[in-house]
Amino acid sequence: MMSFGERFRITIFGSSHGPEVGVTIEGIPAGTRIDPERIQADLDRRRPVGRRLATRRQEEDRLVLDSGVTQGQADGAPLRAHVTNEDVRREPYDRLKETPRPGHADYPARVRYGTGADLSGGGIFSGRMTVGLVIAGSVAKTLLAARGIDVVGYTRSIGTVDAEIPPGADVPQLRERSRTNEVGTPDPVASSRMEEAIAEARRDGDSLGGIVEVRIDHVPVGLGEPFFDSLESTIAHVLFSVPAVKAVEFGAGFAAARMRGSEHNDPFVWVGSEVRTVTNHAGGILGGLATGMPIVVRVAVKPTSSIARPQQTVNLTTRSAETLVVTGRHDPCIVPRAVVVLEAVAAIAIADLALRGGYV
Amino acid sequence: MMSFGERFRITIFGSSHGPEVGVTIEGIPAGTRIDPERIQADLDRRRPVGRRLATRRQEEDRLVLDSGVTQGQADGAPLRAHVTNEDVRREPYDRLKETPRPGHADYPARVRYGTGADLSGGGIFSGRMTVGLVIAGSVAKTLLAARGIDVVGYTRSIGTVDAEIPPGADVPQLRERSRTNEVGTPDPVASSRMEEAIAEARRDGDSLGGIVEVRIDHVPVGLGEPFFDSLESTIAHVLFSVPAVKAVEFGAGFAAARMRGSEHNDPFVWVGSEVRTVTNHAGGILGGLATGMPIVVRVAVKPTSSIARPQQTVNLTTRSAETLVVTGRHDPCIVPRAVVVLEAVAAIAIADLALRGGYV
Amino acid sequence: MMSFGERFRITIFGSSHGPEVGVTIEGIPAGTRIDPERIQADLDRRRPVGRRLATRRQEEDRLVLDSGVTQGQADGAPLRAHVTNEDVRREPYDRLKETPRPGHADYPARVRYGTGADLSGGGIFSGRMTVGLVIAGSVAKTLLAARGIDVVGYTRSIGTVDAEIPPGADVPQLRERSRTNEVGTPDPVASSRMEEAIAEARRDGDSLGGIVEVRIDHVPVGLGEPFFDSLESTIAHVLFSVPAVKAVEFGAGFAAARMRGSEHNDPFVWVGSEVRTVTNHAGGILGGLATGMPIVVRVAVKPTSSIARPQQTVNLTTRSAETLVVTGRHDPCIVPRAVVVLEAVAAIAIADLALRGGYV
Amino acid sequence: MMSFGERFRITIFGSSHGPEVGVTIEGIPAGTRIDPERIQADLDRRRPVGRRLATRRQEEDRLVLDSGVTQGQADGAPLRAHVTNEDVRREPYDRLKETPRPGHADYPARVRYGTGADLSGGGIFSGRMTVGLVIAGSVAKTLLAARGIDVVGYTRSIGTVDAEIPPGADVPQLRERSRTNEVGTPDPVASSRMEEAIAEARRDGDSLGGIVEVRIDHVPVGLGEPFFDSLESTIAHVLFSVPAVKAVEFGAGFAAARMRGSEHNDPFVWVGSEVRTVTNHAGGILGGLATGMPIVVRVAVKPTSSIARPQQTVNLTTRSAETLVVTGRHDPCIVPRAVVVLEAVAAIAIADLALRGGYV
Repeated sequence: MMSFGERFRITIFGSSHGPEVGVTIEGIPAGTRIDPERIQADLDRRRPVGRRLATRRQEEDRLVLDSGVTQGQADGAPLRAHVTNEDVRREPYDRLKETPRPGHADYPARVRYGTGADLSGGGIFSGRMTVGLVIAGSVAKTLLAARGIDVVGYTRSIGTVDAEIPPGADVPQLRERSRTNEVGTPDPVASSRMEEAIAEARRDGDSLGGIVEVRIDHVPVGLGEPFFDSLESTIAHVLFSVPAVKAVEFGAGFAAARMRGSEHNDPFVWVGSEVRTVTNHAGGILGGLATGMPIVVRVAVKPTSSIARPQQTVNLTTRSAETLVVTGRHDPCIVPRAVVVLEAVAAIAIADLALRGGYV
Repeated sequence: MMSFGERFRITIFGSSHGPEVGVTIEGIPAGTRIDPERIQADLDRRRPVGRRLATRRQEEDRLVLDSGVTQGQADGAPLRAHVTNEDVRREPYDRLKETPRPGHADYPARVRYGTGADLSGGGIFSGRMTVGLVIAGSVAKTLLAARGIDVVGYTRSIGTVDAEIPPGADVPQLRERSRTNEVGTPDPVASSRMEEAIAEARRDGDSLGGIVEVRIDHVPVGLGEPFFDSLESTIAHVLFSVPAVKAVEFGAGFAAARMRGSEHNDPFVWVGSEVRTVTNHAGGILGGLATGMPIVVRVAVKPTSSIARPQQTVNLTTRSAETLVVTGRHDPCIVPRAVVVLEAVAAIAIADLALRGGYV
Repeated sequence: MMSFGERFRITIFGSSHGPEVGVTIEGIPAGTRIDPERIQADLDRRRPVGRRLATRRQEEDRLVLDSGVTQGQADGAPLRAHVTNEDVRREPYDRLKETPRPGHADYPARVRYGTGADLSGGGIFSGRMTVGLVIAGSVAKTLLAARGIDVVGYTRSIGTVDAEIPPGADVPQLRERSRTNEVGTPDPVASSRMEEAIAEARRDGDSLGGIVEVRIDHVPVGLGEPFFDSLESTIAHVLFSVPAVKAVEFGAGFAAARMRGSEHNDPFVWVGSEVRTVTNHAGGILGGLATGMPIVVRVAVKPTSSIARPQQTVNLTTRSAETLVVTGRHDPCIVPRAVVVLEAVAAIAIADLALRGGYV
Repeated sequence: MMSFGERFRITIFGSSHGPEVGVTIEGIPAGTRIDPERIQADLDRRRPVGRRLATRRQEEDRLVLDSGVTQGQADGAPLRAHVTNEDVRREPYDRLKETPRPGHADYPARVRYGTGADLSGGGIFSGRMTVGLVIAGSVAKTLLAARGIDVVGYTRSIGTVDAEIPPGADVPQLRERSRTNEVGTPDPVASSRMEEAIAEARRDGDSLGGIVEVRIDHVPVGLGEPFFDSLESTIAHVLFSVPAVKAVEFGAGFAAARMRGSEHNDPFVWVGSEVRTVTNHAGGILGGLATGMPIVVRVAVKPTSSIARPQQTVNLTTRSAETLVVTGRHDPCIVPRAVVVLEAVAAIAIADLALRGGYV
């Protein structure tokens, strides 16, 4: 369904080619400062950044705070906000009803929902639904910041170009560095090569995927609900809701599967009056609960499905093979825009667990 | 919390060193055949298999069907079942209250729940809780089988030993092959090397992790709920509830992040009267909905945290450093036993979505 | 929270003196006809009807369908709709922060939410939140009508004036008759006396309550979920969410407590190919499931809390006694306006259970 | 479904003629004292009390605490407990498959669940399921007592015999008085007449209903969740889950509908450092939140459906009329036994809201 969360509860609405996209948020404690400029800044991070790297669909994505805010503060009513869909061109999508795009939801959505559903531009399966996630994530980050919890997302790789993450960097440093380039990575050397790789993919009528890492510092020890609502379960649940996400790993992740216990186990030490671990292969989570070390999660984003190159597909009515050239306006790589979305949903998950556990 | 699912709803109970572990299942259609031997067979797959490979904690894990079954059929009441904890030795755990085991839930659980909680043997954070998952998964597989949906889990790697998965094998073939060896892999060559690797880790007082793959064939096209309850979100949610799981990927997974769209997109073709894809990089899921191709998900299991080698930890009371030697009885590698658990939770997720979508 | 329902899921937003009130609805099957005029007609039934009977707050309550409808049909995206709050006058409410109105949420809401919450006009506890319920209820009725299920609400009593319900009348007849007068009762004689009673209460600076009955015909036999989500539980849950509701009874209700079993039990008979009951003391529900007979539920609406007469209250800051004269614009009797709201929420409950049980 | 609550979450299991009935409870804070004798005492209050007044089905209902309790305290694992069904006689029920009992769930349950479900003795629709509610309610009362919240249920009427409730009595006094007689009423004069009325109904092969009142003192001001999870909604939801409940009213309830606002509104006064109301027509609830005054709720229990007198019903197979004489063992009046059940579910609702709001 379109709702997530138990106590920080979001309900997204709208669709790709409908009049709007947005979100309703329940559970924000009354009195929480709501800064529209801060939310707008996050929305801007989600927008296509420059001609060379991104889709030509031009959406202003101006935040409209509809209700729930009085004099700059959450007022106890649900916070509702949206942006208007302005640059909608339905024509390129009309023929897709019969010829599903490879890599898209078109085919299973058509089988499931029939012809009554408006699947133009992907309908509710579109990446445009993530606008509501970014708005909610921005509010969640404000909530968490008041408790000292700090969330950042950044690009780890695009295509085959890997970033080097500066060891020992904290969240503010990672945030600052990854804002200096269009691809959102803290590695300035890799950033240029990533931009080139995207430009090259565009020239080829092709697309690239990549890996985004989200890191959350200063999560209180013990945060997380037992068993089915573990930190990993809750964060992964909402990460996998984001279109194009195909893999999620915490801490050492898949690499842990190749390690020995003596290597993987993070030794405990006292650092002043705090218990810390020497390494952080656990990614800040043991038994589904926060250890107090940084939570580290990596997310694989598949290459954009809509590409200009001819692709093999089927006609659902005539039952014949077809060659499809997708002519809409699409990003050759959505990874730079996905960074703020994945950061947002991680913050939403933590905010919900924090409220459930009585931490905020 | 201890419940999962909306219409195929399970609630697990018990704890590692309490008197029992088990599950209550709601939503099984009345009249569904319930075969205790089939469930017992799954429980047996979860048991430590041989001296060389596994823990010395000896649990019979005899299934007790307490209620909800009449004359071999689900009777409309919740199905409740449990096994008794028989071989409980609390002593080795007593000192762990002050000296948390590296890699375990001990430390955050103690901070969260205080000294009132019985965390002996891991309490509700123990792998023993997965007994209830196996029972519920066995029932879920029966439900799904009646609709033609077929689920299997198998070992892809243990430590650095990788299995080769026979291309073109279907679920029954994968099932048959992976039952011929103790480690649950369909690759007979790798199986011997995996067993050796485990034996070696045991000799070293150390442990190994690995990767389990779960595959589900014949899932109806369109199965999955929109946005937040996508197939990936729902399956990943419950996979990450299983202790020791640190990463989940669907289809090409992390490899997708390095592919181009033209390479990753699976072309559609007509095969008889069915739409199929030539490749299956999507792992059977597009837009969170089933495409009708096999669902393929891989899961990283970290190396067992409890190892015999001395480890560095802290004393929470005296605020000093300590060296810990874990003396309980533990598996050097839980991957072979995790196979049936991960298969079970995947089946549970699919069963719930199938009931929610009206497919069963 | 602000959400209700599992598969026909509504989330209301806005507040009494904020910019808007409205609702987001998930779960409407794509292709369902959405007629804005029909929804507007229901909203109009909720509006203050005439000078003599109602509040002087003048809200146009013009429906705005924001998204989820394409070419007159639900398009698979959430349906979002709202009306604008236009006639907001905050001044009369400012002093209420310190002197809670008797019979209102002011006092417990202030203790719970503190001074950060905007409780002006009642905030999210206001009757104005029911605008979203009416919109959602109108859509629910459309859904149910397609399955032959017919819902109507009408006034049974206002103050001490009781209506006589024509025996044997079906839903269309009850609907038609209760639309012929301002108080929404199917008894034309009682309607005049009810109007007089309301006018008299207004002259006295006082208010009246009343009883609303909702009847639902042609509910499929068996509809309802076992135990905790019984028909009575689900309908009563959402009825009691409506401000001013203090009692709910099904069928014979409290009168059943004084009957003998031989009198109360409804005998079964065959009527053609259908099983019916001779009487309907059960109100169409046995064991929480629909019997196929009309569902009949009565709801007590307390007299409007805001009255012009001086009332005794306290000052929360000075800890002294105060005499309060409420000067806002208020209905002397909200019962006529509550009819469509209670009809709406009953329809919402049935629609959700119908979708959960696979009946629509 | 068989689960209720969000943070004090109960899942009931078993059925009328299956091997057991019981409950699993999540959310009990670790360290909470669990006294089996106290729970047993509540179970004993639910048992048929004497030959003259009650069913001849003889169940010992001995509490078995299966898990979740260590050394007399909740240990952080779910608390699971059950009683065994011992005195099961299926024969009288066999023919009911074709001839549904008037007033029972038989008919709609058969239509809904088909012949696969075990509806013997009512299956999961039986009053026997309330054993789990009593166990959970007993634990909930312990939780609430630690916060000073005190819950009691008592009989207000049986058939046409009304009890007089001593004005000014507090919960301990009401509890003490209503335990002095078999029918559970605080009015010793009415108690004899109630017993006579029940005996008379039994002689006539007939049954009686009645009204139970539940009162909860010292609920913290503000407890309750906004809008859909109001105190009234949550309490009524679970009260209406109890078989045979047909009406629920809070405070003045239906009488409020006939009052004027000036009469119904409860004036606020300072009593020492506390805000109280002079009257309590609101039943301790305004805007769905606790006012700090006693919560008062009355519940109508219909007369037992199973009566010895011949009743008119149908044969579902032969499509003919039948006369049915119910020969099972049944209570002529379940009201005395329902008291502890309704007290229990009210406590469960309050406990859940208290945990959700952070009050315990």
